Amino acid sequence: MAGENREEKLKYIREKIRPFPDFPSKGIIFRDICPILKDPKALSTVIDLFEEHVRQTYPDVELIVGLDARGFLFGPLLAQRLGVGFILIRKKGKLPGPTASVGYTLEYGKAEAEVQEDAIEPGQKILIIDDLLATGGTLYAACELMKKQKAQILGCLVVIELTDLNGADRLKPSPLFSLVHF
Amino acid sequence: MAGENREEKLKYIREKIRPFPDFPSKGIIFRDICPILKDPKALSTVIDLFEEHVRQTYPDVELIVGLDARGFLFGPLLAQRLGVGFILIRKKGKLPGPTASVGYTLEYGKAEAEVQEDAIEPGQKILIIDDLLATGGTLYAACELMKKQKAQILGCLVVIELTDLNGADRLKPSPLFSLVHF
Repeated sequence: MAGENREEKLKYIREKIRPFPDFPSKGIIFRDICPILKDPKALSTVIDLFEEHVRQTYPDVELIVGLDARGFLFGPLLAQRLGVGFILIRKKGKLPGPTASVGYTLEYGKAEAEVQEDAIEPGQKILIIDDLLATGGTLYAACELMKKQKAQILGCLVVIELTDLNGADRLKPSPLFSLVHF
Repeated sequence: MAGENREEKLKYIREKIRPFPDFPSKGIIFRDICPILKDPKALSTVIDLFEEHVRQTYPDVELIVGLDARGFLFGPLLAQRLGVGFILIRKKGKLPGPTASVGYTLEYGKAEAEVQEDAIEPGQKILIIDDLLATGGTLYAACELMKKQKAQILGCLVVIELTDLNGADRLKPSPLFSLVHF
């Protein structure tokens, strides 16, 4: 983290995120993270900031749990930096073997989040990661699924938080850490 | 790569992959990579082996292109090791802004692979990464999409190749590099 301060790093990441009005539907501003992935410096900066926070706040984390599909872009990188394992939460029907699942409601219908039953042992300390928090429906379902598996949720991590939608309230008492706010 | 030879590394990875017969449908043996992700040593070994191959064979690669969703698990890790950017190929309707797409046929229907139009400049040297090569339908579509964008495809990388299905033939003339064969 030497040579650049935290505010400069956050500014660098923020400037990489592109707004796309009316995507995927009218009235929504989509925050596009693709330019972060395309710029190796921006991507390593995101992981630097996550790593710094996790080492300070949750030094005993045992697993990073990532959400299908954009949580997969950041989760394995953070897990490798921390030297811990990465667990996949997927959309229904994608994971083989015995699974546990939790249903949740989306704007346009219903979905289910699944995890392999043997992925997590009771009491294991986990952090859940995704790219973005909007209303919090998907991350809330992920938390419910992890509770069902008796994991100890230390917190949730996202690159982008859309603060007006109050998604963080929905995740309580699990704390949320977000890098960039819109 | 010191201290352990390539064969030992490949054996270590291979033993982590779990077979699930009759998933997602009867007669198919699903090769589950989740245990690789859960074991930080196994995951770093996969990236070691990819990195070694790419540095030796394609030292001038400019971008790693990963397929939704399991290519996202390995692609950003490899891109970071190489110090290059990562580009997302997604299922239709997930990427904002102008996109290019290519349709392809799956066992159970049709799908479209999409990329943002400004993701790649003509002539850029790319490698395409996914977790597994079966019949090669999805990776073939990804190659077609990249050709449409005038990228220079150096090759394709997968963790697992199901050799009996001859997917590598379908990708020709693009060379395939795979770590584990079943």
